[in-house]
Amino acid sequence: MARYQLGQVNADGSPATADRGKAVRPTLCLLMCEALGGDLAAALPAAAGLELLHNFTLVHDDVMDDDETRRHRPTVWAVWGRAQAIDAGDLLHVLATLSVLRSGGGGDSALLARDAVEVLTDGCRLVTEGQHLDIAFETSANVGVADYLDMIARKSAALLAVAFELGAVFAGNDAATRAACRAYGRELGIVFQIRDDVLGIWGDPAVTGKPVGADIQKRKKTLPIIHALETADGPDRARLRSMFGDERAPPDAETTTAILERAGSRSFVDTRIRRHARRAREALEHLPVNDWGRRNLEAVATYIARRDR
Amino acid sequence: MARYQLGQVNADGSPATADRGKAVRPTLCLLMCEALGGDLAAALPAAAGLELLHNFTLVHDDVMDDDETRRHRPTVWAVWGRAQAIDAGDLLHVLATLSVLRSGGGGDSALLARDAVEVLTDGCRLVTEGQHLDIAFETSANVGVADYLDMIARKSAALLAVAFELGAVFAGNDAATRAACRAYGRELGIVFQIRDDVLGIWGDPAVTGKPVGADIQKRKKTLPIIHALETADGPDRARLRSMFGDERAPPDAETTTAILERAGSRSFVDTRIRRHARRAREALEHLPVNDWGRRNLEAVATYIARRDR
Repeated sequence: MARYQLGQVNADGSPATADRGKAVRPTLCLLMCEALGGDLAAALPAAAGLELLHNFTLVHDDVMDDDETRRHRPTVWAVWGRAQAIDAGDLLHVLATLSVLRSGGGGDSALLARDAVEVLTDGCRLVTEGQHLDIAFETSANVGVADYLDMIARKSAALLAVAFELGAVFAGNDAATRAACRAYGRELGIVFQIRDDVLGIWGDPAVTGKPVGADIQKRKKTLPIIHALETADGPDRARLRSMFGDERAPPDAETTTAILERAGSRSFVDTRIRRHARRAREALEHLPVNDWGRRNLEAVATYIARRDR
Repeated sequence: MARYQLGQVNADGSPATADRGKAVRPTLCLLMCEALGGDLAAALPAAAGLELLHNFTLVHDDVMDDDETRRHRPTVWAVWGRAQAIDAGDLLHVLATLSVLRSGGGGDSALLARDAVEVLTDGCRLVTEGQHLDIAFETSANVGVADYLDMIARKSAALLAVAFELGAVFAGNDAATRAACRAYGRELGIVFQIRDDVLGIWGDPAVTGKPVGADIQKRKKTLPIIHALETADGPDRARLRSMFGDERAPPDAETTTAILERAGSRSFVDTRIRRHARRAREALEHLPVNDWGRRNLEAVATYIARRDR
């Protein structure tokens, strides 16, 4: 089941060439390690562990959200049932920790593995907290912009912060550099999620591969919707509240986007993206990275803020 | 939710004096540490982590098994729903690792924390494997005695092995002593589970607090049943197979125990208990424990093999 989730095998155990995901987190971990002059070989097991941890959260998320499809295949629970999927997620969680433990080489550098496990596990703590809030928000009528940003800072941004901090751990950096890496990752993670929210409403179906207003159809209360629910004028707000709170009819994409425009929600989220992207660049300025690394890390920040899919 | 599971609060968050479980694993961890002349203070966070890990497995088990009651209270999922319970279990898993990481004190002894996390996590790997087998057995017609023993060695015995090995880690012991601790815990864990199976069928309701033949009513294929399914005479075997495989009527306790007696299953499991208890004592002989520790560890083994509830 773990290998299936990782796209390495089919449900019957035969080798697969399935979509294995983009491996964003381990890639960024190794990029930061190299940018800080670290040894990639020491960081590799931790980078792999981070990808295992991410997949553990996906397997459990799919059970919690009743999602039957991921990466164009049935989810683990859809194939083997919920009980086995919960257990398979727990195993991936375990394998993540074991992989990180085996990083850093032996002897004194075993201490690096200890630090890396702490970084990974504390990041995972934030993810479980964010997931808790996300589930609670589904049944809560009063989720504000601040609540939402707090939730995504944990659920979505924490593992990007872990990715960059792990790079710094294996490059042997001090607490200040590690904190700057964490801040860079957290801010970029927030940008990533808000950009995701923008694409879920205004994304080009030809580029994203998702229908127009995909998140509106699913009644997802993403940042633009939450902003409009807080700030739209009386009639617009009542209309939006009814469309997103009433089970009888799915919200209409055209009406919703018109309300969002009038409430200034598109401009609000774009401003937010710029603000967090600027904070990420400020954190990057304090990092003792080489020129090659700085160029690449700046390109990463620009890509995440502007991506179309 | 984590505090609720640990019996510290009620579902509304108010302080509780609920049953907090027996804390068997942390107690045995500290007993072994002291028996080997170790420093209890260094081991305490790891012992606490072990109890957190045990509770993580309970929260997820209750979701997987649809169990609505534990320790005389509604289970976490019964109060907050399955999604929040899966997430709360994940948090307890995380908190277990963080607690163990903070054991051993700083400096060089941070390496002890690294070793302890590896012991805990690898034990947890075995538990997830055992859980996988246990779920798979529910829908499998051909589970033999060897399959069952392999399953309980992982699902039930692994965390007792972890408990004793963690004691040795913090007492600064070498690989051979750690392996003997692990063997002692594994054999005792198997004894514990088989004795549990015996009590589930032949236990005295006045002592166990459970109905006569509690496991028979629940159609649990424990070791005595599996043995009889393998070895009973033709008509008895057919009768047992039908009672435990057919959904229409619950198995009858009197008929079942008569079949078990004829198949020699009671004597088989008692022999098994004695065999694994002897192996545990052999492992104990090789341990460099003090006299106080040896007396207590022998008493633990005797209690586990003979307990009536």
